[in-house]
Amino acid sequence: MILRLILTLLLMMPAFARADGLRGTGNLGLVIERATGSALIVDTGERKAIGRVEGLGDLSHASAVFSPDQRYAYVFGRDGGLSKVDLLTATIARRIVQAGNSIGGAISDDGALIAVSNYEPGGVRVFDARTLDPIASIPAVGADGRTSKTIGLVDLPGRRFAWALYDAGEIWIADLTNVEAPAVTRLTDVGKLPYDGNVTPDGRHYLAGLFGEDGVVHVDTWQQPLKAERILDGYGRGEQQLPVYKMPHLEGWAAVGDKLLLPAVGHHELIAVDLRKFTEVGRVATHGQPVFAVARPDGRHVWVNFAHPLNDTIEVVDTESLEVIHRLTPGPAVLHMEFTPRGNEVWVSVRDADRIDVYDAASFAKKAEIPAQKPSGIFFTARATRIGQ
Amino acid sequence: MILRLILTLLLMMPAFARADGLRGTGNLGLVIERATGSALIVDTGERKAIGRVEGLGDLSHASAVFSPDQRYAYVFGRDGGLSKVDLLTATIARRIVQAGNSIGGAISDDGALIAVSNYEPGGVRVFDARTLDPIASIPAVGADGRTSKTIGLVDLPGRRFAWALYDAGEIWIADLTNVEAPAVTRLTDVGKLPYDGNVTPDGRHYLAGLFGEDGVVHVDTWQQPLKAERILDGYGRGEQQLPVYKMPHLEGWAAVGDKLLLPAVGHHELIAVDLRKFTEVGRVATHGQPVFAVARPDGRHVWVNFAHPLNDTIEVVDTESLEVIHRLTPGPAVLHMEFTPRGNEVWVSVRDADRIDVYDAASFAKKAEIPAQKPSGIFFTARATRIGQ
Repeated sequence: MILRLILTLLLMMPAFARADGLRGTGNLGLVIERATGSALIVDTGERKAIGRVEGLGDLSHASAVFSPDQRYAYVFGRDGGLSKVDLLTATIARRIVQAGNSIGGAISDDGALIAVSNYEPGGVRVFDARTLDPIASIPAVGADGRTSKTIGLVDLPGRRFAWALYDAGEIWIADLTNVEAPAVTRLTDVGKLPYDGNVTPDGRHYLAGLFGEDGVVHVDTWQQPLKAERILDGYGRGEQQLPVYKMPHLEGWAAVGDKLLLPAVGHHELIAVDLRKFTEVGRVATHGQPVFAVARPDGRHVWVNFAHPLNDTIEVVDTESLEVIHRLTPGPAVLHMEFTPRGNEVWVSVRDADRIDVYDAASFAKKAEIPAQKPSGIFFTARATRIGQ
Repeated sequence: MILRLILTLLLMMPAFARADGLRGTGNLGLVIERATGSALIVDTGERKAIGRVEGLGDLSHASAVFSPDQRYAYVFGRDGGLSKVDLLTATIARRIVQAGNSIGGAISDDGALIAVSNYEPGGVRVFDARTLDPIASIPAVGADGRTSKTIGLVDLPGRRFAWALYDAGEIWIADLTNVEAPAVTRLTDVGKLPYDGNVTPDGRHYLAGLFGEDGVVHVDTWQQPLKAERILDGYGRGEQQLPVYKMPHLEGWAAVGDKLLLPAVGHHELIAVDLRKFTEVGRVATHGQPVFAVARPDGRHVWVNFAHPLNDTIEVVDTESLEVIHRLTPGPAVLHMEFTPRGNEVWVSVRDADRIDVYDAASFAKKAEIPAQKPSGIFFTARATRIGQ
């Protein structure tokens, strides 16, 4: 009797709840709608949107990470906003504005801490993942004594985070096992103006791209003492002095088997890097300047999108032959791609068509179109299971 | 008013429901309790059991896979039972007995199909993941014309499955894109009596251990035409003619970076295999005969348990130095280990102490003990995100 009453009442809940008011969260995701400061909540099983959350502030370059239970998304806005979104109720569970200008964040491997990388006032701030209460603040004062912007913030195993200091040219790795007294290792003089960083999927190798020099910095976090080494000289912007807005972001790399595929700076190419030696082992000629190179989860293919004005196209690269084997033209302003966790489908945001397209990753057939308001980043809850999510 | 009523009523629901009746499923798991034919449902965030499901039949060598939404576990019993368990309500959503004697199963990459590997009457049967209605049956009739037991069933990308025919000595790879007409590639004469098989985490390399000969069979599923090649001659049982109950199962291997660590047959050793060349590159001396070698998700450590009578112990192996760096003695009959998805903790079933222990994977400190009835296999929902789950 009581059960029947519960069921009846639950049926009055919003459409995103199932008949019994319960649902798993393993196939949910969030799509950033930058222009409207909103996010769509999507169901990859049904291939549809199941809710929308508004009031997320400035979502330029916004990104998201997920709680271990895959119920909550933490959305990092450009305006310093940090929003905890409840995917099951399509509401904002908590929201703070924690800085004046920020760029991305990360969640600790135990799910307890949210760290945010700030431009203004610089440094990294750390929050309780449950309440968003502030827990720690790590100012980014470089060897030169001045406060730096921070970029390339990622989580590492063992409740650690890594990030780079843009102005000071440093890479810091912080162990927050004791969050009251973070143990920070500072690698100074790593190169001029690291503009982005990322870590390999095993959490071992941290790489930062340099804007002020022509190359990439590599830290093997398994080695003691930690040290930063230059790799791929000639990779960077040196030869063409490109403006910063064309720099490919390093979250756009693909790790496949024993290789990394990195978007080349200012060229119509991907660079293949050997993951043992960190040397270049090949190049892939592409349609335009690559922005994101996203690996299908099995590593057999990499899907690549491109900078304006060639951003209506996606190319699919075979990672064994390093050749383009397929080209699609989804539509105007293809901004992002996200695979389902086992790689059977890929979701593509086509911003200026106000649409998300879903493709079969084996046959390349389009399986669904989902309306969205100027969609950009797509983030699925399976990221909660990944190191450096 | 209605909301308040809903909340009040929901509070009367079982303990596994949160205050609002909603919860994410990313941090749930299932622990097999073989002796009682039951399974515990556990929450890795809270480090506790939140429910128990009974009536699952004979759970000897039982295993489980998960639906993409991570709400349902599919439990494969030894008696041919296939049970779909609802983790959110701790109930059996569906249950069938699909064969007389079976050994494991898999879920297709799109989550639509459940395949089960049968001893009696042999072959592989395929079911609708939603309803458990039968969809296809693929008899395992070898080149010799006789029906074979099947073993080592795994999912591969592109709605494919791979398995081996024990009696006939064959490996079959089936594309079920059109489930009405499965496209099966049969590799015959691969070696005598393959007794178990598994695939690397990228879904590329299928390996089967041989009981009737001294070695392992390897299929690189990226190569066309498919072919089976012998590797690791000398790995197998030949030299000691061990009884079958001591053969280590191949789901007990660890893939770390560019290596596999395999339990050696009949020796107190792990064998390190290069993942590019599939040749032996080292051995690790261990406390006993390894049963499971489980990689911490970052690949830095591998945790190993052992066959009776040395099965009260776990050793932790550093995958760079290939040396044992730590030894624990959790208690009598350590049967299985499962890491949380990003590797911060590991759950250990200590069968004869009726207990699950939770360890910090960095400090090795014990963080919790959870009562369980003769626990064996531990399976977390993050498996839903993995190829060859």
